[in-house]
Amino acid sequence: MTPAFVLVGPQLGENIGAAARVMGNFGLSDLRIVAPRDGWPNPKAVSMAAGSPVLEKAQLYDDLESAIGECTYLFATTARPRGMVKPVFNARDAIGQMKTLIKENQKVGILFGAEKSGLPNEAVTMANAIITLPVDRSFSSLNLSMACGVLAHEWAAGAPIDTDFITAEPMASREDLERLYVHFEEELEKGGFFYPPEKKPLMVQNLRNIFARGGLTEQEVRTLRGAIKALAKGRGKYGLRKGEAGEAKPIE
Amino acid sequence: MTPAFVLVGPQLGENIGAAARVMGNFGLSDLRIVAPRDGWPNPKAVSMAAGSPVLEKAQLYDDLESAIGECTYLFATTARPRGMVKPVFNARDAIGQMKTLIKENQKVGILFGAEKSGLPNEAVTMANAIITLPVDRSFSSLNLSMACGVLAHEWAAGAPIDTDFITAEPMASREDLERLYVHFEEELEKGGFFYPPEKKPLMVQNLRNIFARGGLTEQEVRTLRGAIKALAKGRGKYGLRKGEAGEAKPIE
Repeated sequence: MTPAFVLVGPQLGENIGAAARVMGNFGLSDLRIVAPRDGWPNPKAVSMAAGSPVLEKAQLYDDLESAIGECTYLFATTARPRGMVKPVFNARDAIGQMKTLIKENQKVGILFGAEKSGLPNEAVTMANAIITLPVDRSFSSLNLSMACGVLAHEWAAGAPIDTDFITAEPMASREDLERLYVHFEEELEKGGFFYPPEKKPLMVQNLRNIFARGGLTEQEVRTLRGAIKALAKGRGKYGLRKGEAGEAKPIE
Repeated sequence: MTPAFVLVGPQLGENIGAAARVMGNFGLSDLRIVAPRDGWPNPKAVSMAAGSPVLEKAQLYDDLESAIGECTYLFATTARPRGMVKPVFNARDAIGQMKTLIKENQKVGILFGAEKSGLPNEAVTMANAIITLPVDRSFSSLNLSMACGVLAHEWAAGAPIDTDFITAEPMASREDLERLYVHFEEELEKGGFFYPPEKKPLMVQNLRNIFARGGLTEQEVRTLRGAIKALAKGRGKYGLRKGEAGEAKPIE
């Protein structure tokens, strides 16, 4: 079961459509539209929904009471404090609370007010709790569909990273890395890079940290070893002046 | 310092404007627009920005390289895995990481691709890490400004609830509550409510939990005590039949 998103008197079809789209993006499906200003259906909503299955299943109601009849727990979203004594949640904690309520088989609704005015006080009074987002007081007017989007994302946000993002690429083992480091440092040693010699341990540490930081795949280790060989190859002709570690120059 | 939101080749002015608006809502200010399809300035962006100060300060660039020249750490947003070996973050963890980097005086940029195609692979290659949102695989096409909105909200999300939402209303103390409970239960006792008598402790527990659950203000305690008095007042005329606890009926 998922929470119902209840749009109370929304003005713009675009926002209804954008809300339906982002609900679909984040696995929500229960959209209820109460007395939309421009009637229903609304072609702008269809266009903004970009094919969201949520819009097709959206339910239309004449008044708020009939839209939330079977709900057992309501959250009211508001940017304005109403001076009512009710629990106030941010998006994350509200969603956490919602998931607990839904496990208790409660039917949860989230009320969203109209673009201009937000929810009327009577609607906030119906709610068990308030959700408010941390908007900047100097520019607090959040778009209706954006408020839906923030809550919809929060609904999905606990999930682990999609497995498609897990690269199967095998990472280099410590042994692989050690061999790369030793190869690199041997060639640098031959090139006179470690100067003065007492600084060598620190220089080695700094070089190794460059690679340790990001991690290397097995393939990248092979690539780098090839690159070291390629760089070292013609080196008979050149050398380093003592004291110019790291700055390769032909010797006059 | 805040992260730069870098829109790479955005198509619709509406989305640029909506991104600027939601960035302003959540305390962000650094918007960079790279080669917008419909040129710049764009009246649709202005309209959707709803007066956001972020749009006025937005910077326009011809190419991505010049837009991110001074950045030291880049996140690429993508819904599609690219098979590149990079750290992958969800929005929350990316923002957490970003805040650490910014404390290290790093300049962080977040790259957002065009509506149709997302970021090109070359842009993802530039990035240190990937951000992906937990979209439903069956309807994964997230609106560009929505992606900006989710990250902008995440940026602000750690903040405590705005103090304006903290009602100064004094809550009832345990003593106040106890007096209310005792008053209530005394009147109920007189009305024959606690039947059979051995059930009284459980009935008391259930009644008290109704009020304990939500908490009561001092004023609400006074209101309820007045209500109990008002209910008990005319009771000489009525009583409860034994065994009908809770269901008040006149005695024939």
